[in-house]
Amino acid sequence: MHALATELFPICRSITGNGVRQTLEILRRELPALKTFEVPSGTPCFDWVVPPEWNIRDGYILAPDGGKIVDFKANNLHVVGYSTPIDATLSLDELRPHLYSLPEQPDAVPYVTSYYKERWGFCLTHAQLETLAPGDYRVKIDATLAPGSLTYAELVIPGEEEREVFVSTYVCHPSMGNNELSGPVVTTALAQWLQDLPRRRYTYRIVLIPETIGSIVYLSRHLDMLKRRVVAGFNVTCIGDDRAYSYLPTRLGGTLADRAALHALRHHAGDFTRYTYLDRGSDERQYCSPGADLPVASIMRSKYAMYPEYHTSKDDLSLITPSGLGGGFEALKKAVMAVEANATFRATTPCEPNLGKRGLYPTLSTKDTARQVRSMMNVLAYADGTHDLLAVADMLEVPVWDLAPIAAALEQHGLLQRLEDRNGGPVHAG
Amino acid sequence: MHALATELFPICRSITGNGVRQTLEILRRELPALKTFEVPSGTPCFDWVVPPEWNIRDGYILAPDGGKIVDFKANNLHVVGYSTPIDATLSLDELRPHLYSLPEQPDAVPYVTSYYKERWGFCLTHAQLETLAPGDYRVKIDATLAPGSLTYAELVIPGEEEREVFVSTYVCHPSMGNNELSGPVVTTALAQWLQDLPRRRYTYRIVLIPETIGSIVYLSRHLDMLKRRVVAGFNVTCIGDDRAYSYLPTRLGGTLADRAALHALRHHAGDFTRYTYLDRGSDERQYCSPGADLPVASIMRSKYAMYPEYHTSKDDLSLITPSGLGGGFEALKKAVMAVEANATFRATTPCEPNLGKRGLYPTLSTKDTARQVRSMMNVLAYADGTHDLLAVADMLEVPVWDLAPIAAALEQHGLLQRLEDRNGGPVHAG
Amino acid sequence: MHALATELFPICRSITGNGVRQTLEILRRELPALKTFEVPSGTPCFDWVVPPEWNIRDGYILAPDGGKIVDFKANNLHVVGYSTPIDATLSLDELRPHLYSLPEQPDAVPYVTSYYKERWGFCLTHAQLETLAPGDYRVKIDATLAPGSLTYAELVIPGEEEREVFVSTYVCHPSMGNNELSGPVVTTALAQWLQDLPRRRYTYRIVLIPETIGSIVYLSRHLDMLKRRVVAGFNVTCIGDDRAYSYLPTRLGGTLADRAALHALRHHAGDFTRYTYLDRGSDERQYCSPGADLPVASIMRSKYAMYPEYHTSKDDLSLITPSGLGGGFEALKKAVMAVEANATFRATTPCEPNLGKRGLYPTLSTKDTARQVRSMMNVLAYADGTHDLLAVADMLEVPVWDLAPIAAALEQHGLLQRLEDRNGGPVHAG
Repeated sequence: MHALATELFPICRSITGNGVRQTLEILRRELPALKTFEVPSGTPCFDWVVPPEWNIRDGYILAPDGGKIVDFKANNLHVVGYSTPIDATLSLDELRPHLYSLPEQPDAVPYVTSYYKERWGFCLTHAQLETLAPGDYRVKIDATLAPGSLTYAELVIPGEEEREVFVSTYVCHPSMGNNELSGPVVTTALAQWLQDLPRRRYTYRIVLIPETIGSIVYLSRHLDMLKRRVVAGFNVTCIGDDRAYSYLPTRLGGTLADRAALHALRHHAGDFTRYTYLDRGSDERQYCSPGADLPVASIMRSKYAMYPEYHTSKDDLSLITPSGLGGGFEALKKAVMAVEANATFRATTPCEPNLGKRGLYPTLSTKDTARQVRSMMNVLAYADGTHDLLAVADMLEVPVWDLAPIAAALEQHGLLQRLEDRNGGPVHAG
Repeated sequence: MHALATELFPICRSITGNGVRQTLEILRRELPALKTFEVPSGTPCFDWVVPPEWNIRDGYILAPDGGKIVDFKANNLHVVGYSTPIDATLSLDELRPHLYSLPEQPDAVPYVTSYYKERWGFCLTHAQLETLAPGDYRVKIDATLAPGSLTYAELVIPGEEEREVFVSTYVCHPSMGNNELSGPVVTTALAQWLQDLPRRRYTYRIVLIPETIGSIVYLSRHLDMLKRRVVAGFNVTCIGDDRAYSYLPTRLGGTLADRAALHALRHHAGDFTRYTYLDRGSDERQYCSPGADLPVASIMRSKYAMYPEYHTSKDDLSLITPSGLGGGFEALKKAVMAVEANATFRATTPCEPNLGKRGLYPTLSTKDTARQVRSMMNVLAYADGTHDLLAVADMLEVPVWDLAPIAAALEQHGLLQRLEDRNGGPVHAG
Repeated sequence: MHALATELFPICRSITGNGVRQTLEILRRELPALKTFEVPSGTPCFDWVVPPEWNIRDGYILAPDGGKIVDFKANNLHVVGYSTPIDATLSLDELRPHLYSLPEQPDAVPYVTSYYKERWGFCLTHAQLETLAPGDYRVKIDATLAPGSLTYAELVIPGEEEREVFVSTYVCHPSMGNNELSGPVVTTALAQWLQDLPRRRYTYRIVLIPETIGSIVYLSRHLDMLKRRVVAGFNVTCIGDDRAYSYLPTRLGGTLADRAALHALRHHAGDFTRYTYLDRGSDERQYCSPGADLPVASIMRSKYAMYPEYHTSKDDLSLITPSGLGGGFEALKKAVMAVEANATFRATTPCEPNLGKRGLYPTLSTKDTARQVRSMMNVLAYADGTHDLLAVADMLEVPVWDLAPIAAALEQHGLLQRLEDRNGGPVHAG
């Protein structure tokens, strides 16, 4: 995952443009079934319209002495995202309103965009800004902001049911690590793992979109279908550093996505930060809006806006690590496993059944088999048509993916009857 | 308010009689629209009947040496409320059962009444009681207890809706400050403020009644109407000293009145005492009884029965203060503002709307505007037809009267649709 | 109770056999109306069948020197329950797999059974086991395991209503105190107390059964009737030692049985351990299974599996004490009193009624009468058809059996109307 992030790092992505296309092209190498879609500028999407497409080839500032002091080719954060083209010579005082830096983090180049108001600008370290002497500065941004299209990609991995698990991540930031590339690379690994599963109960719909406008575009095209089909969804963002695990709920909480995310983090991470929906800031703002109300929760490592390197050049390839990405992937995978494992049962016999005559007791008696018998008895005791396996697992403080095979064995012996679950009846694909 | 309390202080009020009429006459000067009602003695009201009317002109005890040692004209607490007339000479031993004092508060004259059992008596300080020497005491109470009527007053301030906010206070104690005059003077100030409001959504019904029997009489005449119309109510009592803020809920809690009272106290007072309905003791006993079940909560300062001066001569004009009355008035006003501000909305666009194109973002970016944008986004995010503004305000820990103008702006731009609220549909007056 | 336990102690009970019959015979002397039932081996009961009947006459081990070193007649725990007959001479190595001891409790004889897998064995102290020298051991178990029947007993004490309180205890362990005899002797005392009550609202159904298979048998015969009639039930087990009080809820908690048990323990014991349904281990496993779902909770002293003497020879007549049994009986009795006392009322007057004119105020005013008036006013204030007396009692932190006479007096004066309660309408016997 870190190697893929390294390959994607230099590309200058934005909410539209060739950087997104190039990124998706590389990801299609990993996921050949990935399909790309283009939505023309000007297309209405709910209260919004698709903006013009932005492409940038170069951008720099030449000092009064002719030296290149700020260079897009060295770091694509140096040009304000969606900058209009400029080619001019300005005094330092004229230039200054177009320069962005962070006085509190003098060595970091900030990440700045201006999608919906036309302007141009450069970002640089505050340390460098302070060295600029009066004189004539040549500024050049070779960019186009013109009708084109917004690009996104989708991958559908079919399962036994038409009902879906929805996974969304974004590809719209230039060279950044945790708050950009961790999302698509972990999502790619998840998709590969899902494709290799011998059996998938749910269909998986994975989208890679530009943040905010991309999810709005996607919802404007597919909301009805998503509302019918999605049983749980995850927004994959900021999932690559080593410092923390965190969870951000859906708007009201308590959906299958929330329960699976919490269950996964409890068993994977132990300790993690629980944010509230008031702390939101990514595409759950659209997915969980009152008009959409999809069950989309977030499992993250250090959450956007909560770590010092966020939205600066310090959020680079050294901030995300193989173990950071790996841990994030595992947590997300376990949330998916929890969704797959969950089901609601009803016991078929009044009173406890006779497990012995069916050979359901482990023959060897160890601490571990004692736990298994305890789990078996409790799965039966709560098989009342209202507690699902996740509820029983949380009560017993065991992973639901360990309960599922026990429930399956009991089902096979006719002691449990699987019910249409609370997310709507089992809908079979095709 | 303190000046008005000072003017009303000397009047000898009781649950009936001329003291009440004189008090309401003075209040009508402040609130010309106040209407007075007389309910004849013997009128049935639910399980009760209106008692005979009591009027007192004088009352005193002459010591064996002829000196006036206890004098109604010096302090009307000296005569037990509803005392039957007496004119007799008694030995100290014969007199003693008719004398009431407080051994634990030897300098305070207690407040004693006997509404429903005929008796006569005098109240005096325990210090004085202990000085009484054997001898012949002349006692005289010049009072009448005879068919008459019970007096109460009502003021209706019309609003845009027929639905009402109900405000009740009592006028039935003689010279007492916190547990009598703070109620009518703060209620009078509230009524004046309400009358001056440019716009009132709700109609306000303000009643000034004798405690207990007065609220029973009032309910026996108007219960059906109140049940149809009242969205929130407040019982105004003990709201004039400087020492505390407190809240007493409705019987089950959670009504709009409870929520508004708690919201107001959280934002006005910060720290306050939360009583339970088991601590009740004023007219909420009637308003919140299972058969009435009106949403009437109490915002108080030092609650009846919880401060040492309660029901004694020490609950005087020095106990209530301009700042005590002023703070109580402000808290009550804010509860009313919360009721007025509250409304339920539904967002009209799926996903977040484009605020920029409507100029809804503040142009200047400060900490305060950041808070405002955050509030705006959250009002939209919870505009789901189930969260009302009070719920959003409590979640954000901001006053609901600050959210209301934001919601109004969003409504004006067509981004929010106002719903018939949970207190029953918008009922328009006329 | 302790004397009765002493009489029953030596009998070798098991889940079937003459030990159970002999035990029930002695209990019938205390409760002449107790009826005994025999269910033939092989009878199907839900997922189970009634096992063969086991009877044992003798069992011992003779040491190589001919001395009797393990003797059923000295302590019936020495033979594994349901041992098949054996008469053989074995070397120590051949014997060893048939010997059971507790290395951690070297002075205790463990209690071991093998109901559903045919085997034979002896239990002895670990101290003794370690003294055994190589040589030829004569082992003899004179037992029969053959078609017969399972025995249980039932006592129905009629009440005013057909609806029932169900009380279950077990008679299936050999010589053990807390985890066997405390149950039947406390249940017997409860039945005697119930029979002597001048008035019983509910019918009482008391069953004495072998644990697990007995409750399954009983439910397989009576489940429909129990589901219709039982308003609350108690499983009586481990209720005789002096060390603790504890409570184990029904599967979901919150039933009348749970509320009554908690209420009784709060007012009787103050401090007690609250187990969860995950800690279950007695017949509530059957009564509360999803297919039965009867409201059966447990009031215990030291809970099975939670005290060191559990399932060993140390759980003897010295572990249970007269005060231990007496306290357990009182707690259980109070739970029954709570069930009997509970009822739901509606106030008949809007507002508070006039209690004075009905003479309902105590004439003497003391702290105790103040409490009584407070209770009376609160019973009226919550007589709203949704709070039952238990709810009001819990709110006031007073015993519900103290509120019931107050409610009865108010009902007699026409101020309260008794409602069909939440356990289903009042069903009259006959």
